[in-house]
Amino acid sequence: MSATQHRVVIVGGGFAGLTAAQKLRKAPVHVTLIDRCNYHLFQPLLYQVATGSLSPANIAAPLRNILKRQKNTQVLLAEVIGVDTVNRRVVLSDGSVDYDTLIVATGASHQYFGHDNWEKFAPGLKTIEDATHMRRRILLAFEAAEREPDQQKLRAWMTFVIVGGGPTGVELAGALGEIANDTLRNDFRNINPSEARIILVEGTDRILPPYPPSLSESAKKMVEHLGVTVRTGALVTDVKEESVTIREGDKVEEIPTRTVLWAAGVLGSPLGRIVAEATGAQLDKAGRVIVQPDLTVSGHPEIFVLGDLANFSHQTGKPLPGVAQPAIQEGRYVGDAIARRLRGAPIQPFNYKDRGNLATIGRAAAVADLNWLRLSGIPAWLIWIFIHLANIVQFQSRLLVLLQWAWLYISYDRSARLITGDNPLPLDL
Amino acid sequence: MSATQHRVVIVGGGFAGLTAAQKLRKAPVHVTLIDRCNYHLFQPLLYQVATGSLSPANIAAPLRNILKRQKNTQVLLAEVIGVDTVNRRVVLSDGSVDYDTLIVATGASHQYFGHDNWEKFAPGLKTIEDATHMRRRILLAFEAAEREPDQQKLRAWMTFVIVGGGPTGVELAGALGEIANDTLRNDFRNINPSEARIILVEGTDRILPPYPPSLSESAKKMVEHLGVTVRTGALVTDVKEESVTIREGDKVEEIPTRTVLWAAGVLGSPLGRIVAEATGAQLDKAGRVIVQPDLTVSGHPEIFVLGDLANFSHQTGKPLPGVAQPAIQEGRYVGDAIARRLRGAPIQPFNYKDRGNLATIGRAAAVADLNWLRLSGIPAWLIWIFIHLANIVQFQSRLLVLLQWAWLYISYDRSARLITGDNPLPLDL
Repeated sequence: MSATQHRVVIVGGGFAGLTAAQKLRKAPVHVTLIDRCNYHLFQPLLYQVATGSLSPANIAAPLRNILKRQKNTQVLLAEVIGVDTVNRRVVLSDGSVDYDTLIVATGASHQYFGHDNWEKFAPGLKTIEDATHMRRRILLAFEAAEREPDQQKLRAWMTFVIVGGGPTGVELAGALGEIANDTLRNDFRNINPSEARIILVEGTDRILPPYPPSLSESAKKMVEHLGVTVRTGALVTDVKEESVTIREGDKVEEIPTRTVLWAAGVLGSPLGRIVAEATGAQLDKAGRVIVQPDLTVSGHPEIFVLGDLANFSHQTGKPLPGVAQPAIQEGRYVGDAIARRLRGAPIQPFNYKDRGNLATIGRAAAVADLNWLRLSGIPAWLIWIFIHLANIVQFQSRLLVLLQWAWLYISYDRSARLITGDNPLPLDL
Repeated sequence: MSATQHRVVIVGGGFAGLTAAQKLRKAPVHVTLIDRCNYHLFQPLLYQVATGSLSPANIAAPLRNILKRQKNTQVLLAEVIGVDTVNRRVVLSDGSVDYDTLIVATGASHQYFGHDNWEKFAPGLKTIEDATHMRRRILLAFEAAEREPDQQKLRAWMTFVIVGGGPTGVELAGALGEIANDTLRNDFRNINPSEARIILVEGTDRILPPYPPSLSESAKKMVEHLGVTVRTGALVTDVKEESVTIREGDKVEEIPTRTVLWAAGVLGSPLGRIVAEATGAQLDKAGRVIVQPDLTVSGHPEIFVLGDLANFSHQTGKPLPGVAQPAIQEGRYVGDAIARRLRGAPIQPFNYKDRGNLATIGRAAAVADLNWLRLSGIPAWLIWIFIHLANIVQFQSRLLVLLQWAWLYISYDRSARLITGDNPLPLDL
């Protein structure tokens, strides 16, 4: 790096940050990509790790490997705990890095709407560790049921409640339905896994609320076909170790369950607040940073916020959805904008092109809203498969994922259903 | 299960226990297989998980899935904490199970020769968790080196010491050599991974001591070719957070290192002592149960001990090696012996047929001692690949492993090099 070279620091190696880094490949800048993890995670398939059909490494590619040939870029495994806008420096838990331009793209997690104590009983799904933890919870519930003599307790072990009817919740519910009906068939001697009760709880009046109503209806039929009970207009009012309480209008019901999976709400990562405090930027209610039309922070043209952490509402009046597409487009835009700025070229405001939405429910079951075309069932499923395979970063992973999906399709077997982590025994019966 | 059916309880779902269960498929018995894990682990490839070329699920198959069609068999996820020989009952941490015949096959781990405090700094490799922990340690060492300004500390991060020159140690050393020389090439900006110092420490006068001396010599040349320093006749006298001390004859040397991997010694699992106390059986110095020629415990024809936990010395005067082959043969023998007993047929003593030994060092580098034929290099490597693929339990895993090996061969890339587990940051610089 020459001493005079423009230093771009990117915090977060998700879709937004990684794309920005790659876009800067040929720019006259020195890029430092900082992440707490040593890999880029293909989050759209994380639910498949949580439900035992893929291994973590299939959807996680080492950042260093992706960027190894990009000579102007350095990867740093580190945690950012502060931003010093005066000295233009990000503060790490063990050091600091100077920047000329800063890109913050640390994403978002779920939120428990002020009830953080629910997290312990209702884990979310954002990281590899979340996924293996969720997998473990699901599999241990069946193991505990197999050994439970008390019928009432058994029923609670065999009841799975998924909170949130967005794509993640729907995908989890569908996969759980397949696990109970097909994957675990014949696995147990005392219980019949297909008797599991799977409940998908959604606060609004339909699942997949951002989709056209007809596709929400298709998705509902598909998950119901897998044995999932859909409860719309239902709000979770309490989560405890052995139950979840939901309210539908005036009706309050406490459902005994040992497994609540959380896929609701959005909460910007903590760095959003740090950036807001350092720059005076506004946060929205979900803790996302409200950005300018060019994705910078008001008054700080040298700081960009993008991906799930950004609230960009200039196009539709509503923030863009927290999925891969806007993040990738924002990453491209910002990489390009930085290069243009350095050569004095004009910069247009960011313009999101919505190419549609896809969600999968199970084998040969998906919904696709391509704006000009709405599909459900097998055609949507094939598009879903194609788009996801095409977007996985590493060639080898594509082959491995394809092979495992083919196997799953033929055999109904989910071979990655390992209970890992700290010794889970004795089971909490 | 009919009330009068003979109840066989098998503790441990490794090669010995699983094979015994499968052998009893058609016997008029009810089998209960108890394990703390929900999977059978193909331990010979565990080092490949620790070194990032395979995912855990590739070498672990759910026990329930393997045995789902074996109607006389039930799998129990539980931990055995005692054996009540009077009432013929194994005591679980959360219940108990009655047996008519008991098979104990809970394996062995490494041992630290009375220095259990070394384990913290020098982890061993027996479980999936061990493997992901070791992988994390190896990868974090390079990450820490990349960020270490102090040259002396950097050197300690870049020094890897493997203790134990048996197959596991040799395989780990070879894989580390390839990681440093090939896999991580171009990954870093401040360090050159190929400058890593990899030291393989063995107490006897040659690595792979059970092999013919000519093959030990071949193996030594092959690991040295990968940049590994082999120190034979070297005993570890101390392990601390930042160094390992070894003694060669009168010469004592303290080697600064942050990564010590332990692959030495054998220690029978705790259930060995429990069985010994309950039955009066003798333990050897390694904590293994000394068994009769028919693998039963003296005075208890209804209790078999097999696999790595057994010391069977009736053939050669020495215990059988702690590898898959004896365990599988013992499992078959015991399954068969139980069936024969029930129909009143005579039982011959166990007779181990040694089909040879195989160890791999790296790409196109292995040694094979097939008793009638000794091979090294590519022929041994091809045999190694064939035998390992053929013995992996699940068809899908065979395909996945083959695909990943082919990819590794072509690209030198180890895609499963994820740092997972609790947040490792800040790096301990």
